[in-house]
Amino acid sequence: MAAKITGSVLVTGSNRGIGLELVRQLCESTCPPSQIFAGCRDPNGPRVKALKELAQKHQHLVTIVELDTTNQASITEAAKVVGGQLKDRSLNLLINNAAVNIPGSLTETGEQQMMQVFQTNTVGPLLMIKEFLLFLRTAAAQSGAQREMSSQRSAVVNVSTLISSIEKCPETFLHAPMYPYRVSKAALNMLTRCLSEDLKKDGILVMALHPGWVQTDMGGPEAPLSTEDSVTGMLNVISSLTETHMGTLLDWEGNRIPW
Amino acid sequence: MAAKITGSVLVTGSNRGIGLELVRQLCESTCPPSQIFAGCRDPNGPRVKALKELAQKHQHLVTIVELDTTNQASITEAAKVVGGQLKDRSLNLLINNAAVNIPGSLTETGEQQMMQVFQTNTVGPLLMIKEFLLFLRTAAAQSGAQREMSSQRSAVVNVSTLISSIEKCPETFLHAPMYPYRVSKAALNMLTRCLSEDLKKDGILVMALHPGWVQTDMGGPEAPLSTEDSVTGMLNVISSLTETHMGTLLDWEGNRIPW
Ligand SMILES: NC(=O)c1ccc[n+]([C@@H]2O[C@H](COP(=O)([O-])OP(=O)(O)OC[C@H]3O[C@@H](n4cnc5c(N)ncnc54)[C@H](OP(=O)(O)O)[C@@H]3O)[C@@H](O)[C@H]2O)c1
Ligand SMILES: NC(=O)c1ccc[n+]([C@@H]2O[C@H](COP(=O)([O-])OP(=O)(O)OC[C@H]3O[C@@H](n4cnc5c(N)ncnc54)[C@H](OP(=O)(O)O)[C@@H]3O)[C@@H](O)[C@H]2O)c1
Repeated sequence: MAAKITGSVLVTGSNRGIGLELVRQLCESTCPPSQIFAGCRDPNGPRVKALKELAQKHQHLVTIVELDTTNQASITEAAKVVGGQLKDRSLNLLINNAAVNIPGSLTETGEQQMMQVFQTNTVGPLLMIKEFLLFLRTAAAQSGAQREMSSQRSAVVNVSTLISSIEKCPETFLHAPMYPYRVSKAALNMLTRCLSEDLKKDGILVMALHPGWVQTDMGGPEAPLSTEDSVTGMLNVISSLTETHMGTLLDWEGNRIPW
Repeated sequence: MAAKITGSVLVTGSNRGIGLELVRQLCESTCPPSQIFAGCRDPNGPRVKALKELAQKHQHLVTIVELDTTNQASITEAAKVVGGQLKDRSLNLLINNAAVNIPGSLTETGEQQMMQVFQTNTVGPLLMIKEFLLFLRTAAAQSGAQREMSSQRSAVVNVSTLISSIEKCPETFLHAPMYPYRVSKAALNMLTRCLSEDLKKDGILVMALHPGWVQTDMGGPEAPLSTEDSVTGMLNVISSLTETHMGTLLDWEGNRIPW
C-alpha cells in the first residue's frame, strides 16, 4: 500500500543514499506529494546525476534546491527559493536526512571531529527548522486548529539512528564505537524532543526516525536493508504519524527505540 | 559520615560553585585525598580568591592548576604539571565539573550558541579524559587487575544534569528550555556511556552525576539546594560507586535518572 504523503515536502541530502530514495518513492507514489523540494549541497557536482534524472522525469513535482545544511547563508537562500515556490507559502513536511559519519574510535576522535559531526548532524537540523518554521507554521495553521497532528498537516522528521540510543549503547558500542556520530545523534534526539515540546502549540509534530542499517555509502555493502525497503518502511511510518508519536524515536517498522 | 575518597583527585572549574565546594569538602574531610588538583581557567583572575585561600590553608593537599577545558594547549600543559606532581603518575579520580549555560530559548539559539556550549560541556570532558587517560590507567593497573571498580581505584565523574534526560524532557522543558545546554548534556551522557564501555577493560569506572538544582551562579538564588548539601551528597555517591554504576546517570542522592 502506498504511503499517503500528499502535501509539500522538503528532503535534505537527497542526491544519494536514503535521501535520494525518499525523493524517488515520493515521486513514484500513486498519490504523490503536491511539491517535492530535493535539497542537495552541490547540484552541479558529480554525485547528482541520479537526482537530476529523477527531477527531469518528474518536472512538475520535483525542484532541486541548492542547500548545504552547515551553511546559514545557503539555508537562508534555499528558504527564499522554496518559499517563493510553495503554494500558500506552506510546507507540510521537512525531512532532515543529511548527515555525516567519520571514523570514530577514541583515538581517532578529537575536538575537530566532534565539532564537525555535531555541526552537520545536530546544528544543521536546528538551523533548517528555524529557517523553515514560518512555512511549517503556516501549513499547521491552514489545516485549522482542530485538526490532529500529522505529517499531512505539519511535521519535522529528523533522521536519527539506533546507535543514538544511550540506553542501548552497551549492546551496540563494540561493533561501532563512532564517538562523534553517536554523540551527535543523541544530541539530535534531545533537540527533537525539545522541539516537539516547543512546537506542539503550533500544531507541528516533531519526531526522530531510524531508517535501519541500510546499503548506502554510509551504511556500507554489508548492511542488511536495501534503500528501497528502508524507505518504504520510513514513508509508511511517516504517513501514519499521530499526536502519540510526538517526540518519539521510532524505527522504519514503527517500533519505539528507548533514549 | 565522611565520604571516603583517599586517592588523587582532579576537579575542573573549581574556583566557584560546585567545583569550589567539592575541593573544600575534599580538603576538610577527616580522611582526605592524597592529592587534590584544582583546575581553574584563570588562576590570576578576580574569581579565584576563595580557592586561593583554601589552597593556602591546605598547602600540602591542594594544587591550583591553570586549566581551560576548551583549550587543548591548556589541557596539555595542565597534564604536564599534574603528571609531574602525581605520586606514581597515577590519578584515581577525574571530576569533569566545568560547564557553561546561556539563555537558550529557540529564538535565542543559533549555530554559535550550540557550538560554544557543546565545546565546553561535551568536548571539554572528552579532551580531558583523553589527556589524563594514561594517569587513570596507571591508577587502575596499580590496584591490580582483580580489584573492583571504584572511585578509590580509577574513575571519571562527568557532572551532568536532570535536564539532560531526554525521557524527562516533557516534564522539564517549559520551565527551562535551554536548547544548547540540554543538547550538550544529553551529548555528554552518550559520551559517558561510550567511555564507560570503552574503558571498562582498563578498570576505569565512568559515570554521570546530577548535583541537584543548586545555589550557584548557574543555579541561581531560587535553587532549593545549598552547595554544601549537594556536594555532601555527590561525594557520598562518588565514594560508594561500584561496577554496577558504570555508565549510569545518578543524582546526588544516588537515584538513577533515565536517559
Ligand atoms: N545508512 C545507514 O545504515 C543509516 C543507519 C542509521 C541512520 N542513518 C541516517 O540516515 C540518513 C541518511 O544516511 P545515508 O545512509 O543515506 O548517508 P549517505 O549515503 O552518506 O548520504 C548522506 C547524504 O547527506 C548529504 N549531506 C551530508 N552533509 C551535508 C550537508 N552539510 N549539506 C547537505 N547535505 C549533506 C550528502 O550529500 P553529498 O553527496 O554532497 O555528500 C548525501 O546526500 C543520515 O541521517 C544517517 O545518519 C543511516
Ligand atoms: N547549579 C545547578 O543547579 C546545576 C544543576 C545541574 C547541573 N549542574 C552542573 O554542575 C556543574 C557545576 O555547575 P555550577 O552550578 O557550579 O556552575 P557555575 O557556578 O557557573 O561554575 C562553573 C564553573 O565552571 C568553570 N568553567 C566554565 N567554563 C570553563 C572552561 N572552559 N574551562 C575551565 N573552567 C570553566 C567556571 O570558571 P570561571 O569562573 O572561569 O567562569 C566555574 O568555575 C556544571 O557541570 C553544571 O552543568 C549545575
